[in-house]
Amino acid sequence: MIPTTGLLLTDLYELAMLEAYFASDMEDEAVFEFFVRELPVGYGYLVAAGIEDVAELVEHARFTDAELDWMTKSGRFGAAFVDRLRDFRFTGSLDAMPEGTLFFPDEPVLRITAPLAQAQLLETRIINLLQYPILIATKGSRCATAAAGKQLVDFGLRRAHGAEAGLLAARACYLGGFDGTSTVLAAPRYGIPIYGTMAHSFIEAHDDELAAFEHFALARPEGLVLLIDTYDTEAAARKLLGLAPRLAERGTAIQAVRIDSGDLAEHARRVRRILDAGGRSEIRIFASGGLDEHQLQALLDAGAPIDGFGVGSKLDTSADAPYLDCAYKLMEYGGRPRRKHSEDKSTWPGRKQVVRRFDENGKMAGDQIQLAEEPVQDEGEALLQPIIQQGRRIGRLGTLEEARARRSDQVARLPSALRRLDAEPSYPVSASDSVRELAREADAFIKQQRNPGQRELKRLNR
Amino acid sequence: MIPTTGLLLTDLYELAMLEAYFASDMEDEAVFEFFVRELPVGYGYLVAAGIEDVAELVEHARFTDAELDWMTKSGRFGAAFVDRLRDFRFTGSLDAMPEGTLFFPDEPVLRITAPLAQAQLLETRIINLLQYPILIATKGSRCATAAAGKQLVDFGLRRAHGAEAGLLAARACYLGGFDGTSTVLAAPRYGIPIYGTMAHSFIEAHDDELAAFEHFALARPEGLVLLIDTYDTEAAARKLLGLAPRLAERGTAIQAVRIDSGDLAEHARRVRRILDAGGRSEIRIFASGGLDEHQLQALLDAGAPIDGFGVGSKLDTSADAPYLDCAYKLMEYGGRPRRKHSEDKSTWPGRKQVVRRFDENGKMAGDQIQLAEEPVQDEGEALLQPIIQQGRRIGRLGTLEEARARRSDQVARLPSALRRLDAEPSYPVSASDSVRELAREADAFIKQQRNPGQRELKRLNR
Repeated sequence: MIPTTGLLLTDLYELAMLEAYFASDMEDEAVFEFFVRELPVGYGYLVAAGIEDVAELVEHARFTDAELDWMTKSGRFGAAFVDRLRDFRFTGSLDAMPEGTLFFPDEPVLRITAPLAQAQLLETRIINLLQYPILIATKGSRCATAAAGKQLVDFGLRRAHGAEAGLLAARACYLGGFDGTSTVLAAPRYGIPIYGTMAHSFIEAHDDELAAFEHFALARPEGLVLLIDTYDTEAAARKLLGLAPRLAERGTAIQAVRIDSGDLAEHARRVRRILDAGGRSEIRIFASGGLDEHQLQALLDAGAPIDGFGVGSKLDTSADAPYLDCAYKLMEYGGRPRRKHSEDKSTWPGRKQVVRRFDENGKMAGDQIQLAEEPVQDEGEALLQPIIQQGRRIGRLGTLEEARARRSDQVARLPSALRRLDAEPSYPVSASDSVRELAREADAFIKQQRNPGQRELKRLNR
Repeated sequence: MIPTTGLLLTDLYELAMLEAYFASDMEDEAVFEFFVRELPVGYGYLVAAGIEDVAELVEHARFTDAELDWMTKSGRFGAAFVDRLRDFRFTGSLDAMPEGTLFFPDEPVLRITAPLAQAQLLETRIINLLQYPILIATKGSRCATAAAGKQLVDFGLRRAHGAEAGLLAARACYLGGFDGTSTVLAAPRYGIPIYGTMAHSFIEAHDDELAAFEHFALARPEGLVLLIDTYDTEAAARKLLGLAPRLAERGTAIQAVRIDSGDLAEHARRVRRILDAGGRSEIRIFASGGLDEHQLQALLDAGAPIDGFGVGSKLDTSADAPYLDCAYKLMEYGGRPRRKHSEDKSTWPGRKQVVRRFDENGKMAGDQIQLAEEPVQDEGEALLQPIIQQGRRIGRLGTLEEARARRSDQVARLPSALRRLDAEPSYPVSASDSVRELAREADAFIKQQRNPGQRELKRLNR
């Protein structure tokens, strides 16, 4: 229904700038880097995600005939420009942190090095493909910390912002530590475990709640989870006690009940008591309904006997931080460092690498932002890896499972204060002397632009 | 890259329930309605949107062979069930408010009447296709009110949650009153006006800011907008005064400058003075950078001489209200009203219509939620229109331009207090006696389910 790929999925200014670059023969090598300026409030770290989709985008960037025809017919672009786009290919390189890597503000997560027009054109979709998965992988990770080993399932497709968001979210929260998703398409698309129970409408369509349970159990006996809060949560739990032996005779076990409304902790306690008293302590309790990492933590801190959680709207919309202060910025062009003058936010120029140091216990001890050409010292680990060179994949990005394990491993090695849901930013990130020197060089150039000298005044008055 | 359509774009439980419905021969007619429970804080109304995409979904709902093959291979579904889905078609009806209609909590925006399985299966994607466009059309409308006639352009694709969100947002904010978008694909896809300027990277890639302006002007002389805040906003404005006559000689006019950072009001004032003093009062000022409806209003209240705005992240992510408390609920099955018992939120059961009354000045005076079968009284206007019957389009949904005009007309007829950015919910919405009677009937049923009687106890003990 909605075409979501292709190179017209971009801001008009990218195409406008390309036309101007070509007209001015500006075809030198450019370096752009994606980074985040600031952590959302209470966040101690971010999780790299979306890299695989960016690599796909970069590797296969082509204009289709239909796109070029539209550009011609629109009357907005010169014929020579449109013709030149016919052969558009990405011939540069992509370096990035592997997915699942924890990162911090100002650190380049992904670097594109390519002729200026190529690196420029992809800006919009690169940000689009990175920002959201980073948000959701991070939120997934925060939920995983809060859930402390309890089952976590993404329920958010319906409230995600469109179809692609739902799919990206299913993948990203799994990367971040979720056990799976309710989104069916995520199984064939990403190989992610999928889970499902039943809706209130299923119960309500029956003239009898117990008949609804029984119908469902007969039709879908595997991994049976029954939704018990449609009419009276505790009454439904009691009805189950009568149903369970009848189902057992047919070889079907009730694995869990789901509670989706009301005071989840209180209902869970009462239901646990009913089930235990009825000899059904093996039936687990699954909770859902307006949850986020803070509520997971509050429920478990309160000792609620809940074994698993469905997390929906607040996960898939990253409700407390629906966007990141992030950018994909020109860092270098024609061998010279570049940056914008800024009244409130500055950017380290140049092509950069992030080197992470660990303490004797294997804990993360601090990162240094340095130039890509600087040697890696003190047994540090360089985080950005080469993925694409001369337009071709050379690096193995790794599987989703590997990324998931990386996130888990790195969170375990994070200073514990940064794992808290109300973390204060405190992870040490420094910039090397060479980066600082380059920033001074860039600023000298900016100063010259701010105070036009003789050469420019001559131009102005000629 | 990412498949975003198809009937596997759903929650697993929808398929699970379908299998159980078929196994139990539950094929009577069901009525589901989509509605919003509560307005986001400060919102006085919502704008209907997304209906066209839902109609497309419903009309063309089919399982592909690839989807069915996956279902079979997954081992999660019975062979008879998968086989039955091969002929899945929507044979029911869809009634909805036309896009651009203003609506309020508890009012059905869209109603599906169809055999139970058909209406159930589409739940997830229907919510997904309605919620987000409603949020963005509403935010667009709030921005349009705040902007009071100044130009508004959507800049949000890069921070939207995925590609589809970016496209849906471009369309929805245009419906809500925006003048256009920077998203190129929105032009061929929806016929929406597109706008573009240049990025800081374009300026920075040049060794000289003025040369950058000149290169751009020569390559893209139409609708020329120059970004002036890369190094020194006021210095750049002064440089333009020298450039403008040279461009004029070539027949090119600078239409506007864009300011994207710093104190936008203060920079706009200074730049306005520089341009006016230089005899360039025709050059307009366009502002962007972290804007939302509140900042638009504050800038204009402060008398900032800004002629147009680019609104990005906070629009496309609906940052202050990233999701709606909305639902697609079973209202009737087999001719009997249905609803869930609830500790905190209740739903009007039955198949319903919304009738709007107007006062003698044509202003909206109040809505009544009544049964679809009840006559429309007192010259009220029934808001839900038939769109699909027996699986086929019968109603004309109208064009995007018509929806845009409808939104504009209705906002003008809204009580003015509800147009405020900090509105208190106050629009009168009542439920008819028949709806209330049906709710009592549904509650009597719920009571019986909460306190199982003889019949059920017999089942339990048999």
